[in-house]
Amino acid sequence: MNRTDLISQIRAKKSFLCIGLDSDMTKIPAHLLKKHDPVYEFNKQIIDATHDLAVAYKPNLAFYESRGVLGWNSLARTFHYLKKFDVFTIADAKRGDIGNTSAQYANAFFNPEQSGLDFDAVTVAPYMGEDSVKPFLGFPDKWVVLLALTSNKGSDDFQLIKDADSGQKLYEQVLIKSQQWGTADNMMYVVGATKAEMLTRVRELVPDHFLLVPGVGAQGGSLQEVAKYGLTKDCGLLVNSSRNIIFASQEKDFAKKAREEAVRMQAEMAGILDAGC
Amino acid sequence: MNRTDLISQIRAKKSFLCIGLDSDMTKIPAHLLKKHDPVYEFNKQIIDATHDLAVAYKPNLAFYESRGVLGWNSLARTFHYLKKFDVFTIADAKRGDIGNTSAQYANAFFNPEQSGLDFDAVTVAPYMGEDSVKPFLGFPDKWVVLLALTSNKGSDDFQLIKDADSGQKLYEQVLIKSQQWGTADNMMYVVGATKAEMLTRVRELVPDHFLLVPGVGAQGGSLQEVAKYGLTKDCGLLVNSSRNIIFASQEKDFAKKAREEAVRMQAEMAGILDAGC
Repeated sequence: MNRTDLISQIRAKKSFLCIGLDSDMTKIPAHLLKKHDPVYEFNKQIIDATHDLAVAYKPNLAFYESRGVLGWNSLARTFHYLKKFDVFTIADAKRGDIGNTSAQYANAFFNPEQSGLDFDAVTVAPYMGEDSVKPFLGFPDKWVVLLALTSNKGSDDFQLIKDADSGQKLYEQVLIKSQQWGTADNMMYVVGATKAEMLTRVRELVPDHFLLVPGVGAQGGSLQEVAKYGLTKDCGLLVNSSRNIIFASQEKDFAKKAREEAVRMQAEMAGILDAGC
Repeated sequence: MNRTDLISQIRAKKSFLCIGLDSDMTKIPAHLLKKHDPVYEFNKQIIDATHDLAVAYKPNLAFYESRGVLGWNSLARTFHYLKKFDVFTIADAKRGDIGNTSAQYANAFFNPEQSGLDFDAVTVAPYMGEDSVKPFLGFPDKWVVLLALTSNKGSDDFQLIKDADSGQKLYEQVLIKSQQWGTADNMMYVVGATKAEMLTRVRELVPDHFLLVPGVGAQGGSLQEVAKYGLTKDCGLLVNSSRNIIFASQEKDFAKKAREEAVRMQAEMAGILDAGC
């Protein structure tokens, strides 16, 4: 999905909600465990209940890989189900390696003839620099979502280191340097909602790029704060919620409760979009 | 495998060779393509031909994920075949995410009841800091191999940024700070052979830790240089070679040629070990 289509989806649905499919086998409702593929069944019902409210879905690869081959089967089934809907799909994989290896990771998520998967975007870690990121950028209408300033406590360990030469922090350097590799049409950045006040600086550096914002809800970030500092004329935001939506209930009513939480977030987002962009 | 056993293996085999199973489907010999699982068949023959010469094997996850579910099946089969031998197994996955997600990645590689996989070590990217690394350190006799100074061109982009406060470069901060998270018994570091002269500084910071050194051979690094600056009294090195060994020939004699290349490297390593530790 290209940028124009993504923006159209956001305007049509009045939503910039991304639902994180962190589908932890130990947390899905008990009545699904007797199904052939409980995680897929869970995801399918979550998607059915929310696809008119969310513009994007983000399977978190760790929750699939943790079950090995079975988990990758659940991922593949979930991916194919998502393709039935007009939604933006993000493989939250945090990959990145030397050039020839990153090219293989790109095939894993962007080359359906090889892997069976054809996501719109993949999250990538920047530590290994340009040749670790560029192989993902060679696919038309596909996106890299590069880690910049993450939502977790450990983000302070290295991302805020200030370069003696330029005075820029590491995450700022990631934002600056990576703009030589991709554009606002094929690159987004992860900026955590728990660092909302720092979005002012992020927007100075990347005024037009979409930001994928985790950390609203379970991790304590505020949607209003994120919108205040991060919204652009094209919206420019995908705000992710995982646990707060998908595990709103762990009973038989889980899909209904997930929808209620998604409705609540979409309504708040509609208000923000009506006021701001 | 714990540190004592790893050192015993190195002394017994007079080798610190790690063979990288970057088993690219497009490069494996044509006669294997008619097999049910060509990549597994290829890996099996490589392992059979080299397990007396190598102390470690390192499947590169990208080359398996790029074939989706089929690739994860090849990975699982390869892993189970490796377990027949007294070798150290490294999942070269470059994972890392917020704490609860990294815990799931740890299950993927270290928890056989969940994933079917039980590697000795996994490579981890440090960008997201402490809580992204620590969940991998909670498994007895398992190891994190943390990226410090990688062998690729892009390693210059961020890893050499000098912190204005401490004067330390980013990779130095990774080496320093991560020693608060793990020990020389459960943590190694990736330091590329293409940066061999910088091993002097690395050894000032981590005198006892094992280093996993990629980049000898195809990427241009020198084994003698690596040993000169990186060897410790316990060896302290695992030097990886991938393409130079596994694709020494792409014909029916590939396993024989792989062995010849492994013999050559093991002989050079035996000389280094006899002279140095």
